[in-house]
Formats: sequence, structure tokens, C-alpha cells
Amino acid sequence: MLKLHGFAVSNYYNMVKLALLEKGVPFEEVLFFGGQSPEALKISPRGKVPALQSEDGFLSETSLILDYIEQTQPGKALLPEGVFAQAKVHELAKEIELYIELPARACYPEAFFGAQVDEAIKAKAKTELLAGIATLKRNGKFSPYVAGDSLTIADLLFCFSVDLAYAVGKKVFAIDVLEDFPQAKALLEQFKNNPNVQKIVADKEAQMPAFLEMVRSGKR
Amino acid sequence: MLKLHGFAVSNYYNMVKLALLEKGVPFEEVLFFGGQSPEALKISPRGKVPALQSEDGFLSETSLILDYIEQTQPGKALLPEGVFAQAKVHELAKEIELYIELPARACYPEAFFGAQVDEAIKAKAKTELLAGIATLKRNGKFSPYVAGDSLTIADLLFCFSVDLAYAVGKKVFAIDVLEDFPQAKALLEQFKNNPNVQKIVADKEAQMPAFLEMVRSGKR
Repeated sequence: MLKLHGFAVSNYYNMVKLALLEKGVPFEEVLFFGGQSPEALKISPRGKVPALQSEDGFLSETSLILDYIEQTQPGKALLPEGVFAQAKVHELAKEIELYIELPARACYPEAFFGAQVDEAIKAKAKTELLAGIATLKRNGKFSPYVAGDSLTIADLLFCFSVDLAYAVGKKVFAIDVLEDFPQAKALLEQFKNNPNVQKIVADKEAQMPAFLEMVRSGKR
Repeated sequence: MLKLHGFAVSNYYNMVKLALLEKGVPFEEVLFFGGQSPEALKISPRGKVPALQSEDGFLSETSLILDYIEQTQPGKALLPEGVFAQAKVHELAKEIELYIELPARACYPEAFFGAQVDEAIKAKAKTELLAGIATLKRNGKFSPYVAGDSLTIADLLFCFSVDLAYAVGKKVFAIDVLEDFPQAKALLEQFKNNPNVQKIVADKEAQMPAFLEMVRSGKR
């Protein structure tokens, strides 16, 4: 059985978890916080969460884990038919990762963990984040899903990146980054009614107090 | 015929160009500097270089452009057989992109274009870059190519990212980021003898003076 190594507060972990739940693939969750210990680096070369363990070995990096699951596991397809259509889904997923998740991530310490982020880093992140949101508005279909009328890999990135980017906008920059983007707000709302997302959010909320205590105590 | 939109100084452009040259796929180069004009955003949703134009339309983001080429074009394979082995190549490529190219990129303005980069951004980039180099050393095969005995997509990322990261280390941090990584130095040297890389570097050097003038004049 596939083993998903990571923890329920990690948004990248939750992207892969949602893929497995949506496809109905059985999997075991293994608590793993990543890090730079020799043990962690055997599981993930950069010590990152999540890692997927199959009978072939470990894989890191969410984008290719999602593709690996799509190529090897049964269940609902999370990519459309056709090489070009699949590439367009990957394009949207990559744009969300690079231009929304990553700049928002630079501000997570201030938005969520009571730390200060340097002003230069915040200024760069804000510019990039707003350009990333504009890119998604320009390139996404939102009919109602990011890439069209069915849930794809791009939605997994969307569901667990744009929510946090929205919170970063509010908490760090005091702006609504989705103010002119009602389609994105509607899709975020729609995901709140998805039973698999509800399970993932419940698991995240259950783990959050212990995770925050780890962060406060400097153990992570 | 495929059209590759971009410019010869761009390292991501050159990754795709090397893929096409290695496979022996005919293509047309179209000069495109990206940017945020309405015209540029029709070619690339984030205004980025490169963009690949096929009969199906435009694609942005190098990682998926490389996969699209691999899936649709004839010529030498740049991925191994087998889904897991392919995922491992994608893992290495992604690690080079996220943990070497991106932190180095944050320092390109100071390393190559006479600008100053904020100290906080440089400090973050240095930490991330060193961790990225360590990741590649841990996960790469270098026998002699990044993922094994034949050239793959991971080498395209390597060839046009690690060279610049090395220069950033020297120019911005006054360190040799490959000091304990002779396999990487050897592979960079090996690529200097590759005729396709030589053509790409010659095209880059021919374009560099005009590009630097554009940067200096604020047109880019």
C-alpha cells in the first residue's frame, strides 16, 4: 500500500492526500516532519514534506508525486485526455505553485507563526503574489474548476495554496487579493463542501495546536 | 514547425533549446522578451520566457514544455523507461529548479547586472542555495549525468542552472559552492564539449551586449 509521509498541517501534504482521497486509492499516513536529520534526508533529499513511499522507493516534490499517482493508480482521472490539455493543466498548477504559493510562503512566518518577516522580502513577495493572482485569473477557466469542468491536479494546488495566499494578503498586507476574482472565491467556497477536503481540514485543525507548540518551542 | 519564443540569454530558454537540439527536432526561434504588455501576456500568462508554440497553442513553464516535447516529438529519449525512474528524473529536475535556480536567481541582479540585492534576500538565498547544492549531491547519480548514464531532462536544468549558481556563489558570496562536489564540476566541464551547448553559449554571448544595454537602459 502507498505510504504518504508528512503531517496534516502541511498544504503540500494535503494536495497529495486530496488526490488519493479523490481517486479512492488506499494509503497509509506516516507522521513525518521533514528536516535535515540523516533519517529525514533518507526519506526526502531536501528534507521536505510530503514524501510518497511506493514499492519502488521514495518520491519527493508534490508536482511529480501527483503525476506518479495519476500514472500508476486507478480511480477518477485528475488529468484530461490529450497531451496538450494535460500540459495546460500542468501549466496552471505550476503557475499556482511558483507565483502564488511560493511568494505567500515567504510570508507564512508572519501570517501564521508570530514571527517577523523582513520588509524587503515582504515587498518582493507582495509584488510576485499579486502578479501570480493576475496570472491565474488570466489563464484559469473556473468553469467551475481551475482548468475546466472537472477537478484536476491544478485544483489540488489551488485548494491548498490560494486559501493561504488569501490569508497572507489579509494578515500581512491588509488587502483582499481575490477582490476582483469572484470565480476563485466561489471555487474556494465550493471546496469547503467537498467531503474529502472537509476530512483534510478536520485533520489539519486537530493537529494544529501540537504543531504550533512545536514551532513555538523551536523544535521546527 | 514548433516555435520557441524567448531570447538567447535566458537560461530557461536554453534548457528547452538544448532539448530540441539534442532530440534533433526542427524548430524556429522567435525573439520574445516576455513582460507585462497585453501582447506578451497573450503568449505567456505570466509574461515569462520561454513559451513554446505548437499547432495546439502556446505553453509556458519550462518543466512542462520539456515533458510536452518528450511526449510529442521524435528523437533521442530524454527520460528513462519506467514511471518510477521518470519520476526520479523529474524529482532531480524539480530540486535543481526550486533549490538551486530560484535562490541563485534572487541574486542575479547583483551577480550579473550591476544592481544591489537587499541583504535579507541575499542571506535567505545563500542558505537555500547551499541546501540545494547539498540536495543535488545527495540525490544525483553523476555517472556521469545527473540521473545516470544518459542525458535526461534533469541535465537540462543542471547545465543552465548550476553554472549560474556557481557564478553567484563566486561573485555575490565569494564562495565556491561546488568546492566539495567534483562530480558536478566534471559534468559542467563535459557539457562545455557538447556541440549543442557550444552553439547555445555562442548564441548567448552574441546576444549579451544588446541584452545588457536593454537592462541598463531600463527597458527590461
